[in-house]
Amino acid sequence: MFGQFVDRYATDAYGPPVGVLEAIDRAGHVGDLVALDINYPFDSGVSVDQVRTALGRNKLRCSAITPASYSRKFQKGALTNPDPQTRREAIDLYKQAITVAQELGAKYVKFWPGQDGYDYPFQADYEALWRYSVEGVREVAASAPKMQFGIECKFKEPRTHMFFSNVANTLLAIQAMGVDNVGIVFDSGHSFLAKETPAEAVQLAARHGRLTSVEVNDNWRDWDDDMAVGSVHLIETLEFLLALRKIGWDQVILLDQFPFREDPVAAARESIRTMRQLDALLDRLDLEALEAAQDRQDALAAQRLVLDLFLGRP
Amino acid sequence: MFGQFVDRYATDAYGPPVGVLEAIDRAGHVGDLVALDINYPFDSGVSVDQVRTALGRNKLRCSAITPASYSRKFQKGALTNPDPQTRREAIDLYKQAITVAQELGAKYVKFWPGQDGYDYPFQADYEALWRYSVEGVREVAASAPKMQFGIECKFKEPRTHMFFSNVANTLLAIQAMGVDNVGIVFDSGHSFLAKETPAEAVQLAARHGRLTSVEVNDNWRDWDDDMAVGSVHLIETLEFLLALRKIGWDQVILLDQFPFREDPVAAARESIRTMRQLDALLDRLDLEALEAAQDRQDALAAQRLVLDLFLGRP
Amino acid sequence: MFGQFVDRYATDAYGPPVGVLEAIDRAGHVGDLVALDINYPFDSGVSVDQVRTALGRNKLRCSAITPASYSRKFQKGALTNPDPQTRREAIDLYKQAITVAQELGAKYVKFWPGQDGYDYPFQADYEALWRYSVEGVREVAASAPKMQFGIECKFKEPRTHMFFSNVANTLLAIQAMGVDNVGIVFDSGHSFLAKETPAEAVQLAARHGRLTSVEVNDNWRDWDDDMAVGSVHLIETLEFLLALRKIGWDQVILLDQFPFREDPVAAARESIRTMRQLDALLDRLDLEALEAAQDRQDALAAQRLVLDLFLGRP
Amino acid sequence: MFGQFVDRYATDAYGPPVGVLEAIDRAGHVGDLVALDINYPFDSGVSVDQVRTALGRNKLRCSAITPASYSRKFQKGALTNPDPQTRREAIDLYKQAITVAQELGAKYVKFWPGQDGYDYPFQADYEALWRYSVEGVREVAASAPKMQFGIECKFKEPRTHMFFSNVANTLLAIQAMGVDNVGIVFDSGHSFLAKETPAEAVQLAARHGRLTSVEVNDNWRDWDDDMAVGSVHLIETLEFLLALRKIGWDQVILLDQFPFREDPVAAARESIRTMRQLDALLDRLDLEALEAAQDRQDALAAQRLVLDLFLGRP
Repeated sequence: MFGQFVDRYATDAYGPPVGVLEAIDRAGHVGDLVALDINYPFDSGVSVDQVRTALGRNKLRCSAITPASYSRKFQKGALTNPDPQTRREAIDLYKQAITVAQELGAKYVKFWPGQDGYDYPFQADYEALWRYSVEGVREVAASAPKMQFGIECKFKEPRTHMFFSNVANTLLAIQAMGVDNVGIVFDSGHSFLAKETPAEAVQLAARHGRLTSVEVNDNWRDWDDDMAVGSVHLIETLEFLLALRKIGWDQVILLDQFPFREDPVAAARESIRTMRQLDALLDRLDLEALEAAQDRQDALAAQRLVLDLFLGRP
Repeated sequence: MFGQFVDRYATDAYGPPVGVLEAIDRAGHVGDLVALDINYPFDSGVSVDQVRTALGRNKLRCSAITPASYSRKFQKGALTNPDPQTRREAIDLYKQAITVAQELGAKYVKFWPGQDGYDYPFQADYEALWRYSVEGVREVAASAPKMQFGIECKFKEPRTHMFFSNVANTLLAIQAMGVDNVGIVFDSGHSFLAKETPAEAVQLAARHGRLTSVEVNDNWRDWDDDMAVGSVHLIETLEFLLALRKIGWDQVILLDQFPFREDPVAAARESIRTMRQLDALLDRLDLEALEAAQDRQDALAAQRLVLDLFLGRP
Repeated sequence: MFGQFVDRYATDAYGPPVGVLEAIDRAGHVGDLVALDINYPFDSGVSVDQVRTALGRNKLRCSAITPASYSRKFQKGALTNPDPQTRREAIDLYKQAITVAQELGAKYVKFWPGQDGYDYPFQADYEALWRYSVEGVREVAASAPKMQFGIECKFKEPRTHMFFSNVANTLLAIQAMGVDNVGIVFDSGHSFLAKETPAEAVQLAARHGRLTSVEVNDNWRDWDDDMAVGSVHLIETLEFLLALRKIGWDQVILLDQFPFREDPVAAARESIRTMRQLDALLDRLDLEALEAAQDRQDALAAQRLVLDLFLGRP
Repeated sequence: MFGQFVDRYATDAYGPPVGVLEAIDRAGHVGDLVALDINYPFDSGVSVDQVRTALGRNKLRCSAITPASYSRKFQKGALTNPDPQTRREAIDLYKQAITVAQELGAKYVKFWPGQDGYDYPFQADYEALWRYSVEGVREVAASAPKMQFGIECKFKEPRTHMFFSNVANTLLAIQAMGVDNVGIVFDSGHSFLAKETPAEAVQLAARHGRLTSVEVNDNWRDWDDDMAVGSVHLIETLEFLLALRKIGWDQVILLDQFPFREDPVAAARESIRTMRQLDALLDRLDLEALEAAQDRQDALAAQRLVLDLFLGRP
């Protein structure tokens, strides 16, 4: 979110190129960030040491390494590519990323399988997609039992249909892998896009002991717009943050934004401010009264408690 | 919204039967309502005088009369029914409603053309739908030039596709009618459902001088759930109320809710409370700063002003 | 689908009342049906023997019994109702239905938990919904280990959010039940509504050994319109039927339609005709070529094989 | 659709760079194309003469010139940019394109206002968007009364909300312009995305005398996936082609595809083949029977005529 943004129309990009070291410096300027998710491979010529140094001077740590399993080479899939040789290259890329993650002290390696899926009816053999996905992740995860892995599921984009489409689908596939060190990278925007209720879906992941990481942003619910937190779904974002409290989430919450037309540092600061404000609201929420309302499924009473937080008393 | 609710599953209804006079009394119990939209024909045996008396004892006036052009007889359309005789009956029903509206001092007669449209590909002749719709409304409106009429457009339900599907489509058809006394009944929930931005769409109607009435509620954006105001789209509802100020709307705002599982009187009160609170927030919104932000399309600055209203007070 | 249809607008219904015995006779008139899913309780005064006789004279068997766990009494949920007494009544209703199902030789008892879920943000305790759902179904299923049960999952309606929302969510809950005799009633329309690819989702259910029953219809993908088979999603319906062949489905396929404005017998016949035609197309589909195309994820080649079936060769 | 494709993930693009002259040659290889819509400015150093020559050697003509009013410079809008200087630059770009269009004998200059709109609630002054849009297009169109212009409306992307969002909205704005030489570039995929029925919407544009051009493709209805024609919505595409016959459309139909993972020449050929096949089906459609079915809104009869075309031949 601190790099250069491009899309299929503005092919000259929404701003000038930004290297990984510069992007880390930008993140440092936000002032409130503590950890980053970093893409791998780095720009040509950039070493792990340079990345470590850049993190250090910005008082940031590396939370995750995300292998670029979605570039041109993997356009028909990484772990599910129809070509065995490309599947092998994807696995190799993930394994290299493990080493880098260890060197940078990252908590987990992220699978972002955006190209793994299909676009057209009849294009894919769904059994093969399942098998390749389960076996591919399993092989990578089994190769480093002490490293944690997280699958960032999403309904679509860049494929019109991604295999790891939502939390429940992904949990089923993780179960089939039979490994302990794979969980879900829960992105609240992806949850909106999948028509899940984020609070419910994150509790589902936690209930199964498979919540690896949490990312936040907002969108209009039929595309992954990666907007500032709370900008569209304010009430559901509050409910989501309450769910994080309920499951005892005490780790970092990552921002995942694409501020195409905004300043990325400012966009990060705004989202952080919003989250702090929402957190302060939660401190004032009468949980006992809320639970009592929920115990009778009293929608109006539950909503009133929440709306009065937002709207105040005259 | 104060009557009996039924759907295709709970065919024994969500509560006992409620006659029109009892429904008016319920509305009176809300305590803050001033005007009602009343379906016509009334229950068998109920006279206009009885309705007038019921309104009077509850200090309510009749804002609109809505002919039941969506009952069994009109299941394939009222003004667009393929059968000329049924189209004639629909026109007659609307004309009778004009008399009742006049007797009750209603501001307008509402077209709620829920059965006018189509369900399947290839089912309808779109030219015929256009022609019947334009000619039918024109005939009714021309028969009472001093009465105002409003078309409540909606994307779908009960048909999978309604002819008067959104504000822009309906404005085009109204233009083709060539009459002065037909406008739009703008329902904020229908606007969400049509994927419009309500603030933008209501300004579009007003810009064309065709805003007859305003109704509010909320939903999940792919069905007309008729939920309490602000329960899902809090930010956009605030933006919508600001748009009403901008266009100088000084008439009543009607609630249109279907609280299947809630108490209708309580649901009305909650929505009214929410709207009052939103109105109070608007009083505190720094409009100058907002306009300045909009003048440079500065999304983060505009959002900050609004989010601090909801979240602020540090 | 052979009864009386009503919705929240046409409260006088789309046609006259139809009793269960008459509905069975209508089904018999279709001429090609072999099995029915019958709601329970029957109309007041109708006995199991009368239903059996009606089935017999129409050469139909009872495929499933569906308890009416979605009527007024259960408007806030059946197995997940916040009131323990109502939950108990729901369980009792299901258990009574088991006896009836046994008496009629039904293959399974269907859970159609349309009221089990929530409507508003913050209304529900998602942990409680999960627990009540898992425990409730488990208790019913454990009480009759030789009877099969099927959960018909759906994203929404009548609730804006159903707990058993899609195939993957439901499979996770079934796993948690720890019983062998509960599976999924897969409705292709519900799959479209949940934004699943039906062919992929039915294979997911089958892969987990949990496919109890298959129902078909079509819709516009954001509501459960229960339209005639293939009327909107012709290509995906063909792909779905191919998936049924792949998993070796050799049991009945049930129609689940709500032809509000059409003749139900004619609607059934049309859907059956369409399915027979699609089946004949599948007989002519070059499966070897399709698999070769899928093995390289060649969308254009796979589509060409299918489109040429529909569109013929010049 | 014959150039290089990139998106926000595969920033190394889905294939190597393709210049405009090479793209024209690719189009020539399709073998069945007769006219192209060409972006302007051309690649650096490419002259109008070179483009004309490339068209000539491929037996293609230039149907339209599309100014790149969606590049980095115009990321906050072209004609609606908040900065007056940038709005001026957009107008200048459009005017330059007129000259090029005249030199190449293009039928029309296309407005593709993808950056004109907004992303966030409260970001935009909707009055200003309307005014800038109406005045900007009017100024360009009035500067060349003998040139035709077409606005390609779309619901969203790259903005989350485009101003010219659908056919009806755009017709209203065109009316407000008060010029004769502006119409709509109707893209069937954009129509699906806007939840319009393409057959109905194209007739709406034609009824108002504002149909400038027709483009075709397909998508999954909540994003502009630009897939091959008929790949998802086969029945509605047939209905759309029938609507084109009804309105007497006798001009070219343009393909607008983004075959990210497919060969663009093959993708074009497949779509052309599909359209030819659909056209042949239409020749065999019993129009008299269809009209009779539509005259009674008999969905099953109308569908049967169509489904038997696709499925029949017993």
